Amino acid sequence: MTLPSLRLKANADRRLRAGHLWVYSNEVDTAATPLNAFAAGDQATLEAAGGKPLGIVGISPNNLICARLLSRDIRYSLDKSLLVHRIQVALSLRERLFDQPCYRLIYADADLLPGLIVDRFHDHLVVQIASATMERSKDAILEALVQVLKPRGVLWKNDSAARDADGLERYVDTAFGVVPEWLDLEENGVKFQTPVVQGQKSGWLYDHRLNRARLAPYVKGKRVLDLFCNVGGWGVQAAAFGASEVFCVDGSAFALDAVERNAALNGVAEKITCVEGDIFEALKELKNAEERFDVVITDPPAFVKRKKDLKNGEAAYRRLNEQAMRLLGKDGILVSASCSMHLPEDNLQNILLGSARHLDRNIQLLERGGQGPDHPVHPAIPETRYIKSLICRLLPNA
Amino acid sequence: MTLPSLRLKANADRRLRAGHLWVYSNEVDTAATPLNAFAAGDQATLEAAGGKPLGIVGISPNNLICARLLSRDIRYSLDKSLLVHRIQVALSLRERLFDQPCYRLIYADADLLPGLIVDRFHDHLVVQIASATMERSKDAILEALVQVLKPRGVLWKNDSAARDADGLERYVDTAFGVVPEWLDLEENGVKFQTPVVQGQKSGWLYDHRLNRARLAPYVKGKRVLDLFCNVGGWGVQAAAFGASEVFCVDGSAFALDAVERNAALNGVAEKITCVEGDIFEALKELKNAEERFDVVITDPPAFVKRKKDLKNGEAAYRRLNEQAMRLLGKDGILVSASCSMHLPEDNLQNILLGSARHLDRNIQLLERGGQGPDHPVHPAIPETRYIKSLICRLLPNA
Repeated sequence: MTLPSLRLKANADRRLRAGHLWVYSNEVDTAATPLNAFAAGDQATLEAAGGKPLGIVGISPNNLICARLLSRDIRYSLDKSLLVHRIQVALSLRERLFDQPCYRLIYADADLLPGLIVDRFHDHLVVQIASATMERSKDAILEALVQVLKPRGVLWKNDSAARDADGLERYVDTAFGVVPEWLDLEENGVKFQTPVVQGQKSGWLYDHRLNRARLAPYVKGKRVLDLFCNVGGWGVQAAAFGASEVFCVDGSAFALDAVERNAALNGVAEKITCVEGDIFEALKELKNAEERFDVVITDPPAFVKRKKDLKNGEAAYRRLNEQAMRLLGKDGILVSASCSMHLPEDNLQNILLGSARHLDRNIQLLERGGQGPDHPVHPAIPETRYIKSLICRLLPNA
Repeated sequence: MTLPSLRLKANADRRLRAGHLWVYSNEVDTAATPLNAFAAGDQATLEAAGGKPLGIVGISPNNLICARLLSRDIRYSLDKSLLVHRIQVALSLRERLFDQPCYRLIYADADLLPGLIVDRFHDHLVVQIASATMERSKDAILEALVQVLKPRGVLWKNDSAARDADGLERYVDTAFGVVPEWLDLEENGVKFQTPVVQGQKSGWLYDHRLNRARLAPYVKGKRVLDLFCNVGGWGVQAAAFGASEVFCVDGSAFALDAVERNAALNGVAEKITCVEGDIFEALKELKNAEERFDVVITDPPAFVKRKKDLKNGEAAYRRLNEQAMRLLGKDGILVSASCSMHLPEDNLQNILLGSARHLDRNIQLLERGGQGPDHPVHPAIPETRYIKSLICRLLPNA
C-alpha cells in the first residue's frame, strides 16, 4: 500500500530530526501537498522540503498540530502489527517496574503512540483515544491489546474534550468482554476500587504513584488533611502508611463514598473523616474551628488549563496553598501537587515561597517529584511532562 | 551585647524580605557602614536603608557575598543557644525520615546555618565549615553538637576551597573523642564503610540516597556498569538490590579498594568487577571488547564548576553520556547524574536527547530525581539545589 505524501517547508524538518513528533500546520508546504486533501485520520509519508522521507504521520487536517509521527521508518505504518510491537515494548518496561499489573500501559507520544492512552487494572483495560488516526485504528488497537494482554474486559473511555479538535464524538462503551463499574487496583501495596465509568479520566490517576509512596515517612503517627481527595489515592494511602487520622475533603459525595469504600478495604475506616464541600469553604471552616494538621496534601484539578490562564491559575494555587499552610502546626509538612502542564515547577516553588513569607514562616523544600515511570516524558515534547509534587516543611521564623 | 549595624542601600532589602539570606557587597551602604570596618566573622544587625532591622548577619567583608542572614529575629545572634535550637530543628526532621542515624544533619543555608555542614555516621559527626563566622563559632558549634547528639567522635573536615574566600586555612582535625579512619553508615538498607579522612568531602555523599533507592526495580537480574563509582555508593547498592553483575570503574585505586570492602560487607563481592583507569579510556575499551550492559550509571564529579565553564562542561557531559549510551543493549537504562549546580536539569535532559538522536535511538525519560530531604533546598536560593539524576530508557528507533 503506497501512502500519499505530506511535504514540509524548508527547514521545517529540523525539530522533527531533533526528536519531536509533531508537525504544525504552518510548517506544511500546502502548495505541494494541500492539507484539505486529507481526511482526519489519514496516514501519509512525511517528507522534508527536498523530498527525503522522515517517517509516517497520522493527519488531523483541521488541527494546529496537523500531523504526528507514528514511525520514523517508512516501512511501518500504523497497523495491528506496529501496535502489537509498540504495546510489547511498553509492557516490558511496566512489567520490569511494577509487582502488580496496575499502571498506565501506553502514554501516547512518549510510547510512540500519539493519541492513545491505555490504563491497566489487573485484567481490565481502560482505553482513551484522542485523535482521528487512533479512532480509525480502533479495531486494530483492540485486536492488538487482546492479543498481547488477553484481558477480561476493555472499556473505551472516549469522552475527553481533546476529541473535539478532530471532530470526534464523545462516548463511553464496552469494547470487549465484561467491564464492571468498579475495578480493582493496587498502588504502593494499598488496595483500591475505582469507578472507571463514572470516575474522572480513566478512573484512576497512576501518575502520582511515586509521590504518594513518598508520603510514608512523613505521615507516620501524624494528623493529615487531604484536599481534593477524589477517591482517596493520597488520603487512604496516608492512613495505610500509618497516619493517626486523615481528613479527606472533596466537593463530590460520589468520590467520598469511594474514599469510604477504599478505607474499609484497607482496614483504616476508623482513621478517616470525610468532609463534603467546596475546598476553600472547608479551609475557612477548619481554620475557624482552630484545627491543626501535621501534614496537608493538596492535589487540585488543573487550575491552568490553557497558557493564557497562567496568571489567574497562579493566583488560585497561591490562595489554595496559603490557606493550606495556615492549617499546619508549628513544624508542618505541605505536599503541594499540580497537574497543570502549563505551570512550570519553578513557578509553583515561587508560589510556595511567597505564601510562606507572607505568613512569616520559614520554608524548606524537601522533595520534588514528577510523574511515575509509566508516564514517561518524551524529552523533545515538554507537553508530555505535567505532574509536580513538592514536599515542603513549614517552620516558625523566630 | 549590642552588635554594630550593617546598613543596606535603598530597596536592597527586597530580595531578603522575599526570603533570600545573602547580601552582596554592592548592596551595602558603605558610606554609612563601611565594610572594611568589619573583620571576617563579625556579626552585625542588618538594617534596611530606612534603618529598620532585618535580622542578624555574619560578615565576610572581602567576599562578593559579604553577609549572610543568621537570624531574622534581632534578639538571637549566633551563639551556642541558637546553634542548639537550629540543630534540634534539623535533627527532628532527619529522625522523622530515616531509620538509621546516617544522614546530612545540617545543610548550611537551607537549615539556616550558612557556612556549616554536618554529616552524621551513627555516633560520629563530620563537620565542614566554609565561613569565617562559623569558624569563629567553632567552640560553640562543638559544644552544641556534643550537647544535642552525644557523639563518640567529631571530625573537622575543613579542607574545602570555599574557605579560601574568607581567608581561612584548610585543615582536617579531630575535634572531639575518637574518629576512626573508616566510619560505618547505612543507606537504603545497605551497609558501607567509608574513609572520612582520606575520602572526598565528608567521606560520603548522602545527597543521591533517594536516586540510588530508585535503582532497585531497574537493576534486578541485570548487568550494570557504574562509572565514577567512588567507594561504591551506586554499584554496591545495585548489587545488593539484585543486579546479576556490576562493573565499577574509577580512576582511584583507593576508591576501588573501598568498593571491594563494601561489596564484601554486603556479601556481593563475587558480583563486582573493579576496573581502574580513566573513564573515557575504559568506555573505549569496553566498546572495543563489545561489552553490553542493561543499565549504565554515570555520576561524574562536577564538570561545570563555575558558570563560565558551562559550554565546556556541557560538551563533557555530552561526550560521557553518549559513550555510555553506546554500551547499552537494545532496551537499556541510563542513569545520568550530575552534581553541577550551574547545569540546569533541562540542559542535561537536552544533552541526553541530543546524544540519543545522534545514535539514532529513541529515548524515554522515566524519572527525574533531586537531592534527598536531608539536603533541603532553600526555595529563595537556587544555589542550594544542585543534584540531578535522570533515569532514561534507550530503545532502537526502528
